Amino acid sequence: MPRRVAIVGVGHSRFGIRHDVSLAELAWESIKQALDDAGVDQKDIEYVVYANVGVWSSEPLPAVVINEYAGLTPRGTVRVEAACASGSAAIKLGHDIVASGQADVVLVVGVEKMNESPTPIVVELIGRAGNYFWEFQSFGLTFPGYYALYATAYMARYGATEEDLCKVAVKNHYYASMNPKAHFQRRITVEDCMRSRYIAWPLKLYDCSPISDGSAAVILASEEVARKLTDTPVWIKAIGYGSDTSNLSKREDFLSLRAAVEAARMAYRRAGIDPDNPVKYIDVAEVHDCFTIAEVLAYEDLGFARRGEGVKLVREEQTYVGGLIPVNLSGGLKAKGHPIAATGVSMAVELVRQLRQEVERGRQAPIRKGMALAHNVGGTGHYAYVTIYSLEP
Amino acid sequence: MPRRVAIVGVGHSRFGIRHDVSLAELAWESIKQALDDAGVDQKDIEYVVYANVGVWSSEPLPAVVINEYAGLTPRGTVRVEAACASGSAAIKLGHDIVASGQADVVLVVGVEKMNESPTPIVVELIGRAGNYFWEFQSFGLTFPGYYALYATAYMARYGATEEDLCKVAVKNHYYASMNPKAHFQRRITVEDCMRSRYIAWPLKLYDCSPISDGSAAVILASEEVARKLTDTPVWIKAIGYGSDTSNLSKREDFLSLRAAVEAARMAYRRAGIDPDNPVKYIDVAEVHDCFTIAEVLAYEDLGFARRGEGVKLVREEQTYVGGLIPVNLSGGLKAKGHPIAATGVSMAVELVRQLRQEVERGRQAPIRKGMALAHNVGGTGHYAYVTIYSLEP
Repeated sequence: MPRRVAIVGVGHSRFGIRHDVSLAELAWESIKQALDDAGVDQKDIEYVVYANVGVWSSEPLPAVVINEYAGLTPRGTVRVEAACASGSAAIKLGHDIVASGQADVVLVVGVEKMNESPTPIVVELIGRAGNYFWEFQSFGLTFPGYYALYATAYMARYGATEEDLCKVAVKNHYYASMNPKAHFQRRITVEDCMRSRYIAWPLKLYDCSPISDGSAAVILASEEVARKLTDTPVWIKAIGYGSDTSNLSKREDFLSLRAAVEAARMAYRRAGIDPDNPVKYIDVAEVHDCFTIAEVLAYEDLGFARRGEGVKLVREEQTYVGGLIPVNLSGGLKAKGHPIAATGVSMAVELVRQLRQEVERGRQAPIRKGMALAHNVGGTGHYAYVTIYSLEP
Repeated sequence: MPRRVAIVGVGHSRFGIRHDVSLAELAWESIKQALDDAGVDQKDIEYVVYANVGVWSSEPLPAVVINEYAGLTPRGTVRVEAACASGSAAIKLGHDIVASGQADVVLVVGVEKMNESPTPIVVELIGRAGNYFWEFQSFGLTFPGYYALYATAYMARYGATEEDLCKVAVKNHYYASMNPKAHFQRRITVEDCMRSRYIAWPLKLYDCSPISDGSAAVILASEEVARKLTDTPVWIKAIGYGSDTSNLSKREDFLSLRAAVEAARMAYRRAGIDPDNPVKYIDVAEVHDCFTIAEVLAYEDLGFARRGEGVKLVREEQTYVGGLIPVNLSGGLKAKGHPIAATGVSMAVELVRQLRQEVERGRQAPIRKGMALAHNVGGTGHYAYVTIYSLEP
């Protein structure tokens, strides 16, 4: 039987435009908190997994430079990348290192300093991560354009409107306003969103996540160590993953991300969750809302709603606290911010704090079932990781 | 007790300047061989770890693009990077995934297409991987300059000569001439090497590994699956790793890579190898000879020779077949070639084939003890991984 793995410490930097710090200083903000939260110090860490895409930043070997700055030399380390799902991929690998018995205590850090490059360059660099050869170089598509394809398909098929999508942004800004670590602290209205300028029709500025700098860190421990360190371990119950073609032209439709469906199916099977009724098991979820349409697709890919009915959850406010299943109470990528490789780790930090019932007033989910879900997508659905966190091992 | 992990299939592309293939095609050359060697097909693979640095190539998301080309969609995947040690880091993570019970069969692929960029750009990009801020940007050092510091220190302290270093190149070219996958197929003499032009004194052209394109792949399996697939599994007996400061100005001396010493110590402890006499246990080794001096330092960091006596192994030809411990019978980075992230996986492929006694005539080590060692360094000793492969679990 594999060894159980718990999160015993979490840390999270302020997300935003962080010209005030270097990449290593930014990572250290969350590493320091995670060490303090777990009650351990650097010598207790046996291996460090860094999630970082980093093409926008000057540091080509972030793992070793951060490791040194954080006092973690000579610990073994590696950098992992799965585009916007890098953070969840790093947690999967950190989990497996501990579960395998190769280490008892592993630090996982997601960090990104995107604003080191000018915004148009960043948009181009992200765009190359669609399918470089066919879609970026040949047609010049960037990410708002890719997700606009999904939005138009969903609107045409199911009658969703631009106002419906704006309601996702309104919810996520509302919760970000209560999250002191969020990039955006300001609430918006549907009218604000509808009046914002088009980026790629039907997506407007307020349908898009920002280009953020930030870091997040979690400390993973084996069951034996976790029991000694804390009375409130949060267990990694199950991890699912999948991949898909990088060519949107080869996808069957634009109504679902197949990699996410695959990842959810695997995670539910491994966690013993009924895939036809996951909301019966899960108290709260963080989903990959890089654009508002992506949150609606996530509801359906995860089985929170039937096909075409994700938009009903939005209209009925079922993903607010008190609804069927609260989603993105951190503010999500949309309003908390999306420092690419930090995002999956940030989701873990948020869900650990939700399960421990220690987040800020107004954005705490009721915890009755003891499970939480993170849904993290790379590229335009190229990769997906779904991770189930639990109060019970 | 952790699950044992074996290598059940290996594949290796021709190394060299490979303008004839795309990155995905280059990876496929070794993936196809590894699948055939293991007697499995794509549907048997549960997860894929890609090692790729890739800054010199146009493909920003190599993992998903190769996965798709190789028919591995929708399998979960990730890219890992630890500079020139990326391949061994990928094997460590692949090992841990299988050992943890999260998967029974994992494919690990190292691939690099460095010649997509012009050589001066590649040299600059590698140079940034020293310490970008302090050493590359401030002093303009590139890798031959870094390793020249080690060479001059070693020559001054221990009386080694340029001829001694050239003898390492002569050995590695000699064995590469028998390896059809090697970048260089031509033998050289000490005189050829001594006459070659200085790159960074005392290192000459023939002291330096080339800029190569190439791929290598291994299939890892749990014990239960491995026993079904093959009569000649090669086990991953132990993995050690370490890291060090990225600033050469902070290193105590230039006579050893501390990360490699740390990695060797851990690997020997985990494998039950006496660190004072490792050659008693090991039949053959592949070490990280990015420059000839690096191979001499490796002998000492690994305990094959005492401090200052690595050069004696060279002079006495003790690392040829028939000597104390044969090293780099593949040709090494120096002559087989060094497609950065492919290198650690290439070492694994070579050592599996050595242990199975199936390499080309003239470069097969006598296999009497059943263990082989790979020593893979990232940056200028920023990271190191030492992996012990064995015929017995």
